Amino acid sequence: MPSSTRLTDSMFGSPAALEIFSDTGAVQRMLAVEAALARAEARCGVIPAAAAPVIAEVCADRAVIDLDALAQAAVAAGNLAIPFVKQLTAAVAARDAEAARFVHWGATSQDILDTALVLQLGDALPALQADLLALGHACAALATAHRGTPMVGRTWLQHALPTTFGLKAAGWLDALRRDLGRLDAAQARARALQFGGAAGTLASLGVSAPDVARGLACELGLDLPALPWHAHRDRLVEVATTLGMLTGTLGKMARDISLMMQTEVAEVAEPAGPGRGGSSTMPHKRNPVGCAAVLTASVRVPPLVATMLSGMVQEHERALGGWQAEWDTLPQIVTLAAGALRQMGEVVAGLQVDAARMRANLGLTHGLILGEAAMLELGGRIGRLEAHHVVEQASRRAVAQGTTLREALARTLGENPAHAGLLDDAALDRLADPANYAGQSAAFTDAAVQAWHAALAQRGAG
Amino acid sequence: MPSSTRLTDSMFGSPAALEIFSDTGAVQRMLAVEAALARAEARCGVIPAAAAPVIAEVCADRAVIDLDALAQAAVAAGNLAIPFVKQLTAAVAARDAEAARFVHWGATSQDILDTALVLQLGDALPALQADLLALGHACAALATAHRGTPMVGRTWLQHALPTTFGLKAAGWLDALRRDLGRLDAAQARARALQFGGAAGTLASLGVSAPDVARGLACELGLDLPALPWHAHRDRLVEVATTLGMLTGTLGKMARDISLMMQTEVAEVAEPAGPGRGGSSTMPHKRNPVGCAAVLTASVRVPPLVATMLSGMVQEHERALGGWQAEWDTLPQIVTLAAGALRQMGEVVAGLQVDAARMRANLGLTHGLILGEAAMLELGGRIGRLEAHHVVEQASRRAVAQGTTLREALARTLGENPAHAGLLDDAALDRLADPANYAGQSAAFTDAAVQAWHAALAQRGAG
Amino acid sequence: MPSSTRLTDSMFGSPAALEIFSDTGAVQRMLAVEAALARAEARCGVIPAAAAPVIAEVCADRAVIDLDALAQAAVAAGNLAIPFVKQLTAAVAARDAEAARFVHWGATSQDILDTALVLQLGDALPALQADLLALGHACAALATAHRGTPMVGRTWLQHALPTTFGLKAAGWLDALRRDLGRLDAAQARARALQFGGAAGTLASLGVSAPDVARGLACELGLDLPALPWHAHRDRLVEVATTLGMLTGTLGKMARDISLMMQTEVAEVAEPAGPGRGGSSTMPHKRNPVGCAAVLTASVRVPPLVATMLSGMVQEHERALGGWQAEWDTLPQIVTLAAGALRQMGEVVAGLQVDAARMRANLGLTHGLILGEAAMLELGGRIGRLEAHHVVEQASRRAVAQGTTLREALARTLGENPAHAGLLDDAALDRLADPANYAGQSAAFTDAAVQAWHAALAQRGAG
Amino acid sequence: MPSSTRLTDSMFGSPAALEIFSDTGAVQRMLAVEAALARAEARCGVIPAAAAPVIAEVCADRAVIDLDALAQAAVAAGNLAIPFVKQLTAAVAARDAEAARFVHWGATSQDILDTALVLQLGDALPALQADLLALGHACAALATAHRGTPMVGRTWLQHALPTTFGLKAAGWLDALRRDLGRLDAAQARARALQFGGAAGTLASLGVSAPDVARGLACELGLDLPALPWHAHRDRLVEVATTLGMLTGTLGKMARDISLMMQTEVAEVAEPAGPGRGGSSTMPHKRNPVGCAAVLTASVRVPPLVATMLSGMVQEHERALGGWQAEWDTLPQIVTLAAGALRQMGEVVAGLQVDAARMRANLGLTHGLILGEAAMLELGGRIGRLEAHHVVEQASRRAVAQGTTLREALARTLGENPAHAGLLDDAALDRLADPANYAGQSAAFTDAAVQAWHAALAQRGAG
Repeated sequence: MPSSTRLTDSMFGSPAALEIFSDTGAVQRMLAVEAALARAEARCGVIPAAAAPVIAEVCADRAVIDLDALAQAAVAAGNLAIPFVKQLTAAVAARDAEAARFVHWGATSQDILDTALVLQLGDALPALQADLLALGHACAALATAHRGTPMVGRTWLQHALPTTFGLKAAGWLDALRRDLGRLDAAQARARALQFGGAAGTLASLGVSAPDVARGLACELGLDLPALPWHAHRDRLVEVATTLGMLTGTLGKMARDISLMMQTEVAEVAEPAGPGRGGSSTMPHKRNPVGCAAVLTASVRVPPLVATMLSGMVQEHERALGGWQAEWDTLPQIVTLAAGALRQMGEVVAGLQVDAARMRANLGLTHGLILGEAAMLELGGRIGRLEAHHVVEQASRRAVAQGTTLREALARTLGENPAHAGLLDDAALDRLADPANYAGQSAAFTDAAVQAWHAALAQRGAG
Repeated sequence: MPSSTRLTDSMFGSPAALEIFSDTGAVQRMLAVEAALARAEARCGVIPAAAAPVIAEVCADRAVIDLDALAQAAVAAGNLAIPFVKQLTAAVAARDAEAARFVHWGATSQDILDTALVLQLGDALPALQADLLALGHACAALATAHRGTPMVGRTWLQHALPTTFGLKAAGWLDALRRDLGRLDAAQARARALQFGGAAGTLASLGVSAPDVARGLACELGLDLPALPWHAHRDRLVEVATTLGMLTGTLGKMARDISLMMQTEVAEVAEPAGPGRGGSSTMPHKRNPVGCAAVLTASVRVPPLVATMLSGMVQEHERALGGWQAEWDTLPQIVTLAAGALRQMGEVVAGLQVDAARMRANLGLTHGLILGEAAMLELGGRIGRLEAHHVVEQASRRAVAQGTTLREALARTLGENPAHAGLLDDAALDRLADPANYAGQSAAFTDAAVQAWHAALAQRGAG
Repeated sequence: MPSSTRLTDSMFGSPAALEIFSDTGAVQRMLAVEAALARAEARCGVIPAAAAPVIAEVCADRAVIDLDALAQAAVAAGNLAIPFVKQLTAAVAARDAEAARFVHWGATSQDILDTALVLQLGDALPALQADLLALGHACAALATAHRGTPMVGRTWLQHALPTTFGLKAAGWLDALRRDLGRLDAAQARARALQFGGAAGTLASLGVSAPDVARGLACELGLDLPALPWHAHRDRLVEVATTLGMLTGTLGKMARDISLMMQTEVAEVAEPAGPGRGGSSTMPHKRNPVGCAAVLTASVRVPPLVATMLSGMVQEHERALGGWQAEWDTLPQIVTLAAGALRQMGEVVAGLQVDAARMRANLGLTHGLILGEAAMLELGGRIGRLEAHHVVEQASRRAVAQGTTLREALARTLGENPAHAGLLDDAALDRLADPANYAGQSAAFTDAAVQAWHAALAQRGAG
Repeated sequence: MPSSTRLTDSMFGSPAALEIFSDTGAVQRMLAVEAALARAEARCGVIPAAAAPVIAEVCADRAVIDLDALAQAAVAAGNLAIPFVKQLTAAVAARDAEAARFVHWGATSQDILDTALVLQLGDALPALQADLLALGHACAALATAHRGTPMVGRTWLQHALPTTFGLKAAGWLDALRRDLGRLDAAQARARALQFGGAAGTLASLGVSAPDVARGLACELGLDLPALPWHAHRDRLVEVATTLGMLTGTLGKMARDISLMMQTEVAEVAEPAGPGRGGSSTMPHKRNPVGCAAVLTASVRVPPLVATMLSGMVQEHERALGGWQAEWDTLPQIVTLAAGALRQMGEVVAGLQVDAARMRANLGLTHGLILGEAAMLELGGRIGRLEAHHVVEQASRRAVAQGTTLREALARTLGENPAHAGLLDDAALDRLADPANYAGQSAAFTDAAVQAWHAALAQRGAG
């Protein structure tokens, strides 16, 4: 399958993120930084007052930049911003030669590129957070609706003990809550202006430097950090790692759902839709296309996070290699995470849950899944070791004779005079109902839903 | 070079972390969890009151576990905890057969393994934070001491503009401050008890489950989460990503220092010591052995973080593959990060700074490094474009004739009647002193040092 | 779970590889290199003839090296070989002060470490290849035995079309054949002596250098490369990438098998054994412990391969960071791959195949899985589009009425006079038997088995 | 910096690879596969003879596919090929409704996507190999030209011993030779047709399947594998790992060159050019822009290789997640490797080598770099230990007094009656010339150049 950026991006990214991180989305924000810089400098008297509106007006039209020429020139320059500033300066000069002298005044190319990236993140992350909230609400609704829906709990891909579908959804929800908290923290740290000039000292602006920096941050709605961070990339890396964890959470959900969608399991199904996951030649198929896209992201994102971490080892004041490695990598991470979130949002919002099949699957092992319940019940009466022995015997008998554990247990107990009568029919019926052995499922589910709402409340208040 | 775990671990890990994550360190904490479980259950009346002290007493002796037999049995079991519980039960039984029936009551193997890991992190991270604080203080001291020490600012590994060594150290410091904040947050989230029983419902404990869980968390000094997290690993992954970022910061420092230590640059040197980085046959060498260890960690840790992220995609209630992939990976990350931190702590604490050489290196380009300063000075008088032209001409002249920019500038200006006298000798001297073109270096340095102290104050108060 | 090297290594590694890459395994081979060097140099007259046997004799006793002291000293030296040579020299000196002067003559520490590693690979890879051959043979046997065993072919984790279990095993086999070919090639390239002295010129040996190098390679049974490769690591990286691909193949097998072992699918089972994957409280469980270990390796190895690739960017004649990052990483890769191979060897050799269940699972979709076969059969008579329409209608009917596709198709065809009689009972019966729609399964299976034997024959001859 | 695929791709990719892996490049090859399939099936009588030319003619016009609509539909389908076939079928139907019935006959979407990818690789790799040959030739020329150019050999970024620039280039060359061999092998294995139908059995083609498969492979110039490889991806992964190693080699070269370009070292420079790496405000700068692009690739590619390896763990007959993760990843790897190769080709072809500066840098340590040579010379006369002692003393003296080792040595020897006269002026002069201590540099260089030519000869013959 081809790289096909347009084609495959549309499959794995979210439209909003793709737009923000497109070529035009980038250039638009680079222009916004240059305009804000001119305004801030004019206000401080660093450049003539008349220059700023001219520059800002030119910057308002993103068509002022010829992307093809930019791509061409960037190869030799090793950098987008150098030819970008040349083009911008020429465009301003076409209007006002004097103003053109003050384009990009005192800044370095990385100041523009990094700050534009910070602006892109500032637009992309809130959209992502909104999708995360919606997904969380959908999970909370599932958890609440199914807090009492028994299903098989599976470990090592084997039936283990009963659980509820509500608890499974609550587990997803609780992870999403933590992801949301981390994303808020990462976003707060990543709103930092980059502004240091060629070597990070702002020497080019003399004594006006602090005022210009403050003004520029204010113009762009960004925080002013203690110092420029050209070669210290942890704020951006934190966005990457946070989205990496979110993608991991989504991948776990997709794994669960795609496994539950298997033809042999059939407990849930992704929402149907025209052209969505069906197969005309195989009408029984409902492909988990949403889960597949999410799982794709969960395979691709972790190594991309490693790229961001590896890239942190940057040389001196500005680096070669480590910085440039971020350029495509961070946008890919954001885009993939946003796309996975959108896909999982659709999957969960429209998830078809077959509670009857969940219950039916509990019976596939003929009640063996309730061996632990039987052991505990008996253990209270004849001691744990003896109980273990009895249940083990009954289980083997059930397997060998193709009966249920309930029947086998009744017979096994009956054959031993010391045990006969220990469990009457009512007790055996109770034991045979998995809904009676769901433990703290409901309480855990409620706790997760409450924690979600408490987090939202605190977030709203904060 | 061989895996040589003992040999290479000692080179790249910290002794404290190695001890905590050793086989005995792990087993010791697994025993602590079993002891606490017995105590909590006895207190709730789930197991006989008499059983708990016996179990706890046996658990207090880590020699109760035969590590070789454990290693052997774990292969077939696919899991350390199953044969561990067998051994422990046998040891308790040797004292008190009745008590032995209640070992590990109601828990699943992953409860023990995960909670023991949480305890290991609870011991390892504070040691790491202490080292981080010490390194931060050393950087703050360097920054303060050298806030006025001019040196070359380098971009793309080329001389760019003057900066100060204080500002470079302040950049390190500010990154460490953010790393500290993230580490505090990660640690707070990672103090979560794991306790769910075989499928995460605690069904095995019936109605006593909430009390036992609360009691167990209390015994161990851990937080009680909303629900068990057997297949949701983000808390541990966050420790990994946070240490990944810290290692990145340390790697950046090591890159800077090792580049500054190059024979041709010679601006700083790692502390000397017996057997440390010297070479008897090459007496001129001072190998950056501390930096090499840190750089090693910064190559190894990012992919290990990717492993943790990839491992998050876990199946259902308990997984196969993703969970097990953490077992060696997270300890390696902690150990490598702790080792890198210890190494960088020694390097910075004993760093030999040659301020004279820093100043001398500023002169290597014969003053060309001050072209921007000259351009700005002249720009204020003859306009930016004209100034640019003059300085460019003078720079070429300096290169061609092997003179300094100062001289070339004096001549170039002198040859043009319109420019003659623009810059007198005093002005030229001022321009030729890089200390006069350090911009906001001192202010930025001060801001970073203040932010560090403010963070510590808030942390102490928090 | 703790790092617990001894404990977890035993679970994920193979005993042979663990032994080879242990501390003692490494030191033993470093001693072998020093002994061979002394012999080669004595033969060329570079060192006194009398020195070589003394040195060689001391090197024959691996206890001559104190591992604890070595670990201690390596921290400051940044390198194992420097303190190793010191210890060795002292040990030789205790016997013969004159001979001690010629220990390690003309070599650099990396010569010893790298060549010892090459020797370790030379011992580990053949063991791995033998296991690979055994696994291939087991897969070939499975493929042959089940070339006609129909089972569900699954895409997107959904039932798609029939296939055979033989073809699935043949797919594994064919991948293993390619892995074997790559491993042979990688091993051939990796048998290269490292011998260059401090800067890779062998200047320390003057004109005798070529003879000593040739003699040393010959002593050790290694190839003599065109030049030393201290900072060019591709040969070792190729071993890593090759084992990475092998681990991927094994991981795919483990994924298939663990999915087929699911309680709901139950088509195969890992071999049973005492303490192997069972659960006393859940007697119905047969945990895929072998697959879990293999899947663990397939999560861990890819990022470790990335570490090896990243580490290739090494500085000048000998590097800092990139080289050292290999020290634990390559041994981990070899050990994990060897362990995964051993585990998968046991799983496949003892795999329990339930052909009846495979056939039963084909019926889970009530014959819908044979829609394509029906469409093709009808298409030849009434055209593809019309056939598609008929089968789609019948499929919907089958789903809605809970009947088989065979019945629904008979009714649908019967209701249309133009179609009635197109398929008689015999034709419908034939269509309903998935064994008749296995396509080229048998031919593909045979081709893979033949290719395997042909490769072995060529390998034996080569 | 934005993802800016067009903008950043142009900086890091090669134009040829970008074209091949563009959306249109992909669709063009998908059309070629469909056309070849129709022809092969018509020839075997599987579809009407008249259908093939119509289908092929439509496929010849890549504008037949509407990329925007394709992107849109692919989201729901989870797959490019499904909507692609729909569009293609509609386009054929517009010409000939009967022919349209036979579009894509018997194939599955992955057959088309994978085979198109194989065709893309078949076009991209030869271009890459040509660039690799050109780079190799340039390195061979450098090696030959500078086989006698002495320069500093550096280890741990410190001066170690003399070497030659020729030997450094020969090391690059020898690695490139191995990369070429691996690339040939990977390419040979990757020329495999993918053709298996929905579940890999080709059941849809009945008994004609083998003939169609053979014919299709022949039409496309591909090899026919033993069986379809939908879920076995090692052939593609091998391309990735091989390019990963090549990128590592290139990264090592870029690291070397960028370090040698440092202002303080200045031994080589990337070729100059308009808009290439210069800075108008910092005329002394010559940024290593080519090296930066290569280093960027060497940071980005290793984790992408890990993605390919992780993706190998694919489910059953066709997977979800693992396969899709390749779609953007492999093209990125090829494009980055091709771009890095092109950049390094330009850098090496135009590399400016300053042999005088190389020699001058050898003197920076005042001759200490020749301590080993002096030790060996003296060792032959007064024994190694004594010689070591003398040279160590002289070295300390040289450092302390700021003289050369030659002078210090003369004085130290002179002060000891037993040593006076051991080295006369001529001997000291000889020792002080690093060109006399280059060891096997020339021989190693020649061997690498010969090995390169031998490999090419064998390749031409093979």
